[in-house]
Amino acid sequence: MARMIRTDQVGEAYARFVKAAKSDLKGSAATHDLRELVGVSIAFLRSQGAPKPLKSRVPGKNYIGFVLKSNQKKLSRPVNSELFAPEVAEKHIDLLGSPEFSHLTRAERQSVLYTGATVFCCANDLIRQDDRKTPGSFFEYYIGHLVARTFDVNPDNEIKVLNLDMEASLPTDLIFDLGKNKNKIHLPVKLSTRERVIQVWAHQRVLDGVYGTNRFKGVLVCLTETNLKRESGEVVEICLPDQWTIYQMFIAQLARIYYLDPPTVYRRLADKYPFIKVTSFADFFDEQALLTTGGAGV
Amino acid sequence: MARMIRTDQVGEAYARFVKAAKSDLKGSAATHDLRELVGVSIAFLRSQGAPKPLKSRVPGKNYIGFVLKSNQKKLSRPVNSELFAPEVAEKHIDLLGSPEFSHLTRAERQSVLYTGATVFCCANDLIRQDDRKTPGSFFEYYIGHLVARTFDVNPDNEIKVLNLDMEASLPTDLIFDLGKNKNKIHLPVKLSTRERVIQVWAHQRVLDGVYGTNRFKGVLVCLTETNLKRESGEVVEICLPDQWTIYQMFIAQLARIYYLDPPTVYRRLADKYPFIKVTSFADFFDEQALLTTGGAGV
Repeated sequence: MARMIRTDQVGEAYARFVKAAKSDLKGSAATHDLRELVGVSIAFLRSQGAPKPLKSRVPGKNYIGFVLKSNQKKLSRPVNSELFAPEVAEKHIDLLGSPEFSHLTRAERQSVLYTGATVFCCANDLIRQDDRKTPGSFFEYYIGHLVARTFDVNPDNEIKVLNLDMEASLPTDLIFDLGKNKNKIHLPVKLSTRERVIQVWAHQRVLDGVYGTNRFKGVLVCLTETNLKRESGEVVEICLPDQWTIYQMFIAQLARIYYLDPPTVYRRLADKYPFIKVTSFADFFDEQALLTTGGAGV
Repeated sequence: MARMIRTDQVGEAYARFVKAAKSDLKGSAATHDLRELVGVSIAFLRSQGAPKPLKSRVPGKNYIGFVLKSNQKKLSRPVNSELFAPEVAEKHIDLLGSPEFSHLTRAERQSVLYTGATVFCCANDLIRQDDRKTPGSFFEYYIGHLVARTFDVNPDNEIKVLNLDMEASLPTDLIFDLGKNKNKIHLPVKLSTRERVIQVWAHQRVLDGVYGTNRFKGVLVCLTETNLKRESGEVVEICLPDQWTIYQMFIAQLARIYYLDPPTVYRRLADKYPFIKVTSFADFFDEQALLTTGGAGV
């Protein structure tokens, strides 16, 4: 029998996590509240939601959504049914945000990370109508927390641009300063990219110009590129690999692009010039030391 | 006694202009239908709208909005009351889109251009609730038409990126190819810029990289940076001059940024390094030959 969870309990668990993350993004309080939020969201979907198969137009991937039992017209965003695994997430939830997380297999890490990222978003889709802001904020705190905890450093979100007689601040995505003799990390976080993603390369270009090429490693983290067509109930992936290629050639070089549900079309960019390294965010926990010390070829 | 105009007459005039512009952006049919649309929109605001003074928080500028006489809660976007001049627009409307337009004084040109750009947007604000798309599309056709007519060339909106063994297309804003031995023009058009404007510099960077620095002159055309705070009824301008300075230094160089209502904060960027030339779109009609033939210093 599933534990009954009220909608306000999900909202309260989210508010606690955000408060803890705002106060100390890398702190153990944020880890605790994140694990709680994942658990509450899983319990909410079990008690008040029902899975609904969706038509996938993405080769090799299957998707489900969740509807409210009490109002089946309310449908959540799609989740990849191979990666969405509440049982795996619950089993290993106490490792999320701990150094031992990297001891899990890659498949386990993918399931925990993907389920943790999507389960609250799905619950929120069922609770709050047309709320695009909360999932975006949650995902930024979620990834920001895991990366900050891994590096044991809290990020900034603006940098000084000093140049002879002028001084200005540039608002940026998350910036991690790992101290002397290490790379710094420029970490944009997006639910999905679409055409706005050119901003990420442009910010990287500014950082390269101001501080030296690749002094800041650009590491983009995205959830997915899926899109649910509401009319037909079909799930598609929207990818623009030619444009990414052009940006990587002519604007700046991103060191890594991590997805929680990597599109195959983007993964393949790693195999041909300019060799954009697109992979699963599960790999970050193996590569993190390399990112902070490796050269341009990272 | 003002000519009575029904809401569907405004919509029909808009549809005719869009159809003509899509079929031949530089064509005389689009000029004709644009003049008609401006006239119909002025008549609509006179017969069904009433001006309402707004509180300006922009030094040296005053703003009004329009309310529907039949429903005073419906309020249009703010317009600059010095530049918004339906009588001037009506007097000279037959010169809009003609070579003789540049014979008008700069002040007359500013009034005609600004009134022509805003009067349909205000009418549409009163007719269609929360419709942000139509004014943006209109403004792109409006500026696109005037520039295409001036250059006597229709634009493309994507370019081929050829490079050794690869081939790709990059969707862009309007691109005008003026033929051999002339610069080409990269013309992004925006109602206002906000933080998304970094895309414009990033596209310019790609064009510089693929085709050679400044082979395409970047010419950004914006309506205004005003914002109406609905709670207080105050009009503010939102400007980020430090960020523009950083983009112009580290991403690419735009040749001109034209506004129909230029913010003073941005105008001043022309006076200090990196000397971003921000001015009134009225000046385009004097500078157009220079833009297509001048060097990097244009």
